[in-house]
Amino acid sequence: MAKKGLLIVISGPSGAGKGTICKQLLAEESQLRYSISATTRPPRKGETNGKDYIFLDEEQFMKMRDRGEFLEWAEVYGNFYGTPKKNVEEQLNQGYDVILEIDIQGALQIKRKFPEGVFIFIVPPSLEELESRITKRGTDSQEVIARRLNSAAKELEYVCEYDYVVVNDEVDKAVQRVKAIITAEKCRPHRREINIQ
Amino acid sequence: MAKKGLLIVISGPSGAGKGTICKQLLAEESQLRYSISATTRPPRKGETNGKDYIFLDEEQFMKMRDRGEFLEWAEVYGNFYGTPKKNVEEQLNQGYDVILEIDIQGALQIKRKFPEGVFIFIVPPSLEELESRITKRGTDSQEVIARRLNSAAKELEYVCEYDYVVVNDEVDKAVQRVKAIITAEKCRPHRREINIQ
Repeated sequence: MAKKGLLIVISGPSGAGKGTICKQLLAEESQLRYSISATTRPPRKGETNGKDYIFLDEEQFMKMRDRGEFLEWAEVYGNFYGTPKKNVEEQLNQGYDVILEIDIQGALQIKRKFPEGVFIFIVPPSLEELESRITKRGTDSQEVIARRLNSAAKELEYVCEYDYVVVNDEVDKAVQRVKAIITAEKCRPHRREINIQ
Repeated sequence: MAKKGLLIVISGPSGAGKGTICKQLLAEESQLRYSISATTRPPRKGETNGKDYIFLDEEQFMKMRDRGEFLEWAEVYGNFYGTPKKNVEEQLNQGYDVILEIDIQGALQIKRKFPEGVFIFIVPPSLEELESRITKRGTDSQEVIARRLNSAAKELEYVCEYDYVVVNDEVDKAVQRVKAIITAEKCRPHRREINIQ
């Protein structure tokens, strides 16, 4: 049987660049799989069930939640989102590393259920840089930007709950750091059965 | 002032390839410095004081030991060997990472005095491979080889005292793993002051 893979949880404040880092990691690392979330929100144009999201109605979602089938779940603006445990565990058991991009509250939920995961906190090089990134995206009003910056500053206090903190000064460098973390974690004594008797 | 460097302790059974790995690391990584040991054994032909070893007489060595100036020390066949603390700390304070290649007992001594070090255990891919390496060296009798293998098997039990275990199946791969460990350890939250207020 294949050696069990690593669960890699990528988290951090909005605008830190989690999504870009995950995309590049998935493109570069063939042993890496992305965990697909379940949601009760309706599919947007172009989204495929089982690829972008697992689309569920609220009854299905609640049944799964009540059976403890989510590693974490949350309600956001009246829609439910969750990470199905089964899918993640199947991939890990097949020897794939599974990457999960998730907000801080979700990451803390997973840590309680899955402490053997590798928890990585992505941070922008500075709050000024974060402001400039969110502004450039052009999707948020000044008020929303101010709120995002305020909550980012608060969220940075959670850094000590994580195993690693990766500064996203340049995407390539940040991706290399995450890759080094994956390599290093595979050298942890408790993750290995030493092949020598 | 420069950010403090990492103390990297490379240890493991004799014949695992610690020396080769350290040499290649030092050649590839300019921020890395090698810690020079002190010894009471006489210099061999070609050895330079302050480069290969710090050569001391027994009185000098004992004075340093009694003043607690060694990170670790040991007596081997009537000669004393030690790692001077001052030199290591100076380099770390200048921001260099310091690499120390040392036997298991020495590594455990250092861990007690310097728990923030990164302790890496190098292992051969198998005991058969270790036997073949020691035999190929051609410096040991059959009896000595048997003794070395026996003690290597015992020493492998110490693996759980270390932060990482690196299998030296190929030197290049092992060196890449150690480099990844150094990169990852620099992303540990307790080693960083987050630059964001």
